[in-house]
Amino acid sequence: MNKFFGGLAPMLMAATALSPALAADETEALRTPAQIVAAAPQTDWERMAPANLLVMDLAPDAQGKARRVVIQLMPAPFSQGWVENIRKLVAAHWFDGIAVVRVQDDYVVQWGDPEGENPVKAKPLPEGLAVMSEADYAARASDATAPDLREKVKALESLSQMMSNVSDLTPSEVLHGRDPYALVTGFEAGWPVASDGKELWPTHCYGSVGVGRNLSPDTGTGAELYAVIGHAPRQLDRNIAVVGRVIAGMENLSSLPRGSGEMGFYETAEERTPILSVRMGDDVPDLPAYEYLATQSASFAAYLDKRANRKDAFYIQPAGGVDVCNVPVPIREVKP
Amino acid sequence: MNKFFGGLAPMLMAATALSPALAADETEALRTPAQIVAAAPQTDWERMAPANLLVMDLAPDAQGKARRVVIQLMPAPFSQGWVENIRKLVAAHWFDGIAVVRVQDDYVVQWGDPEGENPVKAKPLPEGLAVMSEADYAARASDATAPDLREKVKALESLSQMMSNVSDLTPSEVLHGRDPYALVTGFEAGWPVASDGKELWPTHCYGSVGVGRNLSPDTGTGAELYAVIGHAPRQLDRNIAVVGRVIAGMENLSSLPRGSGEMGFYETAEERTPILSVRMGDDVPDLPAYEYLATQSASFAAYLDKRANRKDAFYIQPAGGVDVCNVPVPIREVKP
Repeated sequence: MNKFFGGLAPMLMAATALSPALAADETEALRTPAQIVAAAPQTDWERMAPANLLVMDLAPDAQGKARRVVIQLMPAPFSQGWVENIRKLVAAHWFDGIAVVRVQDDYVVQWGDPEGENPVKAKPLPEGLAVMSEADYAARASDATAPDLREKVKALESLSQMMSNVSDLTPSEVLHGRDPYALVTGFEAGWPVASDGKELWPTHCYGSVGVGRNLSPDTGTGAELYAVIGHAPRQLDRNIAVVGRVIAGMENLSSLPRGSGEMGFYETAEERTPILSVRMGDDVPDLPAYEYLATQSASFAAYLDKRANRKDAFYIQPAGGVDVCNVPVPIREVKP
Repeated sequence: MNKFFGGLAPMLMAATALSPALAADETEALRTPAQIVAAAPQTDWERMAPANLLVMDLAPDAQGKARRVVIQLMPAPFSQGWVENIRKLVAAHWFDGIAVVRVQDDYVVQWGDPEGENPVKAKPLPEGLAVMSEADYAARASDATAPDLREKVKALESLSQMMSNVSDLTPSEVLHGRDPYALVTGFEAGWPVASDGKELWPTHCYGSVGVGRNLSPDTGTGAELYAVIGHAPRQLDRNIAVVGRVIAGMENLSSLPRGSGEMGFYETAEERTPILSVRMGDDVPDLPAYEYLATQSASFAAYLDKRANRKDAFYIQPAGGVDVCNVPVPIREVKP
């Protein structure tokens, strides 16, 4: 069969090794995103603290194979009220014994208490969970620490002045990253984020973990969570709290059978996948260490550029751009 | 459990029915995309010709359940050389007995001849397949028939003149839909497309079907196909031929176990899902009819607007925009 599109890294690396006469800039032009990540120095990688990882063990599959999902929790300044609730729920072993209740194709996998809406049978939540406000879905734009993000946010101000003279264009119609949903997108401390110049918020991308909720003004507790398994549903940004992302075992969620009920809910208890336990990473002795490519590193900048401008042995037409959810932050497992 | 985010249509419709005093514009503001589609008149729906549908029957699943996938082929002016090759392959029953060989999470499911790269064992292709050129990945912008698309493409010209006076901005930095990959996006005869003002091309979205190929200048025959099962890989636009989209049975591809080999290829023959047969829709007597919401209809315009500006019982913060791959063209099954 053809090996087709997508990462012909090994073949290309061999070709490069065989062509020492290739000019340096030609070699650079032919590099793939995967090659850039593979060549990133150790100093460009950040270790994740196990205390910020959730380890969710699902019931084994039909063949008896263990199914583990590892989730990195969102750091400050984002969604910390919900994140603290989740820490309390894990400490109380509250998630143990609940289940995956919903799998909607091209949307989300969701887990929670199947009896959560039944006032008699619902599993009681631990004491002391915070009630969060809708204002907490975003931080302030001034909270951005990444220099390029700060610059972009600042540029919006002068742009706004400049554009006020052009009748048919508004600042929101001027590209600074050409994102359909926000004036600015970028990466803050390893996470994809967006801004309108006033607020700064984490984006819903493939693998993002968010907090299920009922109708507004409810904002959810963190006891019901979902992971995105399809095209980035960016319309959920600032409408739901993003609290983390799946960093390992994503396939154990994304390949689950889709639910046949409304919105992908399973219609029978038998279809649900039980959750055996959820623990914090520092309570799981056999957990490997994980690192992400620092989004302020030179390696990440080169990787980002290549995601937008692929022109290697496979790509004939560089896109010239890329959306923030099509730049997965490289994450790797390392020996502890 | 909470019914959360995503389509609370039934609840909202009931509420609307109970409130006849609600002002018309308030009711309009609260409508969901799903409600708009449900209310679209029959005249806004286009019937798909069965002769343009591929019906792919996979081997039954472990529980013996049949797995059918229906694919609509791309219409002119796009990718017709490959589409004709696929018709020849189906007529020769060439796809019968091949298999799904690759499932890469957040990327593609791919099917073809597992021995395709083996010159001795490869299944011979039928005679007369066309060899397509890379120029055929796109049509001309002037081929656009949708009035709004034609307008947008035309606007690029005057915009280009206007922007040539603004030093730091190029036309490609001015939004006309704020797409990171193209100056213009829109819908042409029911399909998501993009343009740079010169060319017009079908976009890679969730469910899009494309033609696997080897390294450039190879463009593939159509004998090896893939479907997108993750975030839209728009970097593939104009680098690979898009020949269709999955319109039914997507879950039979997207929930397949991910391959553990490089790029998601299965490492053993046992892991592959056999393809029993692929037939044209007009050769399948029990096939239901399918319709899509005409992308030039008033219903589609309202649906598109609501995908970009949700402000119903669930959404508190309208996004103010949407990307072309986050506007799935509504498709429904109807009694033949």
